[in-house]
Amino acid sequence: MNGDRVYRPSRVDAASPARQNQARSRHLQSAAGMATDLFDVVSPETALERLHEAGLPEPRVETVPLSAAAGRIVPGAVRAPEPSPAFDRSLMDGFAVRASDTFGATEALPAALAVVGEVPMGAPPLGGIAPGEAMVIHTGGMLPKGSDAVVMVEHTEWIDDRAIDVMRPVAARDAVIRRGDDVAEGAVVIPQGARLRSQDLGGLAALGVTHVSVAPAPIVGLIATGDEIVPPQETPKPGEVRDVNSTTLAVEVERAGGVARTHGIVPDVRAALETAARRALAECDIVVISAGSSVSARDHTAHVVGSLGSPGILAHGLALKPGKPSIVALADGTPVFGLPGNPVSALVVFDLLVAPTLRRLQGAPAQSPAPPLRARLTRNVASVAGRVDFIPASLAERDGETWAEPIFGASNLIFTLVRADALIRIPAAANGLPAGSSVEFRPLS
Amino acid sequence: MNGDRVYRPSRVDAASPARQNQARSRHLQSAAGMATDLFDVVSPETALERLHEAGLPEPRVETVPLSAAAGRIVPGAVRAPEPSPAFDRSLMDGFAVRASDTFGATEALPAALAVVGEVPMGAPPLGGIAPGEAMVIHTGGMLPKGSDAVVMVEHTEWIDDRAIDVMRPVAARDAVIRRGDDVAEGAVVIPQGARLRSQDLGGLAALGVTHVSVAPAPIVGLIATGDEIVPPQETPKPGEVRDVNSTTLAVEVERAGGVARTHGIVPDVRAALETAARRALAECDIVVISAGSSVSARDHTAHVVGSLGSPGILAHGLALKPGKPSIVALADGTPVFGLPGNPVSALVVFDLLVAPTLRRLQGAPAQSPAPPLRARLTRNVASVAGRVDFIPASLAERDGETWAEPIFGASNLIFTLVRADALIRIPAAANGLPAGSSVEFRPLS
Repeated sequence: MNGDRVYRPSRVDAASPARQNQARSRHLQSAAGMATDLFDVVSPETALERLHEAGLPEPRVETVPLSAAAGRIVPGAVRAPEPSPAFDRSLMDGFAVRASDTFGATEALPAALAVVGEVPMGAPPLGGIAPGEAMVIHTGGMLPKGSDAVVMVEHTEWIDDRAIDVMRPVAARDAVIRRGDDVAEGAVVIPQGARLRSQDLGGLAALGVTHVSVAPAPIVGLIATGDEIVPPQETPKPGEVRDVNSTTLAVEVERAGGVARTHGIVPDVRAALETAARRALAECDIVVISAGSSVSARDHTAHVVGSLGSPGILAHGLALKPGKPSIVALADGTPVFGLPGNPVSALVVFDLLVAPTLRRLQGAPAQSPAPPLRARLTRNVASVAGRVDFIPASLAERDGETWAEPIFGASNLIFTLVRADALIRIPAAANGLPAGSSVEFRPLS
Repeated sequence: MNGDRVYRPSRVDAASPARQNQARSRHLQSAAGMATDLFDVVSPETALERLHEAGLPEPRVETVPLSAAAGRIVPGAVRAPEPSPAFDRSLMDGFAVRASDTFGATEALPAALAVVGEVPMGAPPLGGIAPGEAMVIHTGGMLPKGSDAVVMVEHTEWIDDRAIDVMRPVAARDAVIRRGDDVAEGAVVIPQGARLRSQDLGGLAALGVTHVSVAPAPIVGLIATGDEIVPPQETPKPGEVRDVNSTTLAVEVERAGGVARTHGIVPDVRAALETAARRALAECDIVVISAGSSVSARDHTAHVVGSLGSPGILAHGLALKPGKPSIVALADGTPVFGLPGNPVSALVVFDLLVAPTLRRLQGAPAQSPAPPLRARLTRNVASVAGRVDFIPASLAERDGETWAEPIFGASNLIFTLVRADALIRIPAAANGLPAGSSVEFRPLS
């Protein structure tokens, strides 16, 4: 050993290695469920529950035209101002008839009907039909008075220019949709909390609803911390790395219906982080800090996140891999998240905690109502019971089933996800899963 | 019968009922595969193949910053300008060591090492380590010269402020990622035709690639035709309905990476439709006409679509339900689609034909490489062999599997889709499917 180079901790605010060691041991005990204080690891579901029950603000509402409403969430149900369709319509090209006139019609013994006109498109029929009469009608055409069914043109034959033979009987309402059959006036057409899809907007357009009340996109402030982090456009000096999380999280915020506001990279200095966090808090509906990887950066983040407002930290440490060193807090109504600096961990925790919170702030259920997607494992996967594991995987189809091939690799760097199609979920109850098991996956799309 | 009201076709350009009937019979023959001319119904796959092999323009390229690149497609592969990571890094909090110094270490007989410093975050270590020495290192820290592995802090104990005991042996490279381990310099990091996801942009940021060459969003011109169609903001008179397709298709265009340009509603007059189509053709990369439901509107659309340029119509009629009366054409390099006026049919055909063409124009494979999603049918579904059927369904999870409950209803109006989570696909080879069958579905998200 070389006495000249013996290490002596120099920074007063850094935890000494011995204290780090103690803290770490305490943390490991917690992970095993042996301690009970607030900083125990909890499941991501528990962390989310604590946050959402701690008093999130009610969703705000703004009214936008349909052309700006795609992907937005409606905090209140939308009802039909009128019935749809607005009039009895034909579902086929053919002839509007009285069903009773066609009873018993066959190819051998067709029913002859007089054709008394043609229903124009976009206008009501001129007159109606009497018994023994029919009118030419097109798909979408308005049924003339006296008719109650449509015979498909394929089941008719012209006798001359003024009469047809009907070769098959129709029942009342055949090939017809009646006023209000699809939507009754006043019925809920878009349920509360729904995310507006193309067909939802189309349905509203059909009813003449050209503007809709939606939740404004929550603003999410993104702060990156870490002395080793430089912006992507800089050439890192030895030991430095470029900021990845500001790029990835901004995309995920927009995907989850939010507006991302990046607040840059803050050095590992508590006061600097606190200033940045308070500025973000004042401007944003959610604040997300991705912590540097060092112990001191994580300590600063925890301290600052806990000091921004009441009630403060609700969960510190998740029973989750990757993503364990995460913090969930509420500061006077604003959710604040401390995400791990590792880009893969940050994306996993964003997906599990931040995206559902974005949905909740917009008045939607935290979890998407869609059933989880599933695939079969191509091989055995090890995991530790008591912790949820997410493992990057590539997907392939074989024999009509989806198979997930786990992508292993100690690195957990961003390119693990670049190569993956999905994250497979190994539940906390599992102690590893054998090949062939059915697992939930979240597509990385 | 009432002679005064006998029907006499009045419009010269409308097909007489008799001729309509003939045309319809011919069409039905084709559907059964009994005729061979160009206007046979073909599978959606065949229609797409014909279009994509008829000579689509090469994708164009524009360079955008990462912040504008999410969801865009890269027409050419992106390579790493430098290796990642750029230096040997620690994957853990612990001590950088020489692995050989820890061989045989146990709790009973630990290896004692002198701690000669701490690796700072964001800077290279001051000096290296000699045999018998260790250096404090944090996750992401740069390995000091002389070290080849990291011992987790949990497997060490401080003897005093200058030395530790290592209680477990490590092998070379343990808890370390070496320069270039994740991505070698020059390696393809984003394959040609990939759609940029959050993690892809993060990977590029990590490599200092702040701008990326992507395909510009193709411009899609949307034209609605039909005498019965009025804009959503108008109150329809009896027989009229509001335009739904301009709203739904615009959203789908954006979802598929395009820019929608609506060209309004054109009446069922051939010259008017031709003028609108030629104007759209001049401004857009794809033209989509959703035809009115009447026979004459469909005839006009077919005539106009066929006359816009060479080679003209490539498929007229699809072996598909809903969506049979569709037209696929290429007009001097610009794809032109005639979609059914029915909103559900239009969305199905958009998804099957227009969206893949949008991807191809941007340099991506027409079909997404993701394996299809699958669910089990809750009940028997009837279908006709030789035709692909898409049926709206709601999804639910039961016993760890996804089940699809078909939503039946003759109407096929837009609210069928508003109520659905997915479209299930009954393949052309099937003559109906029994309950419990595994079916592909396309989420309606």
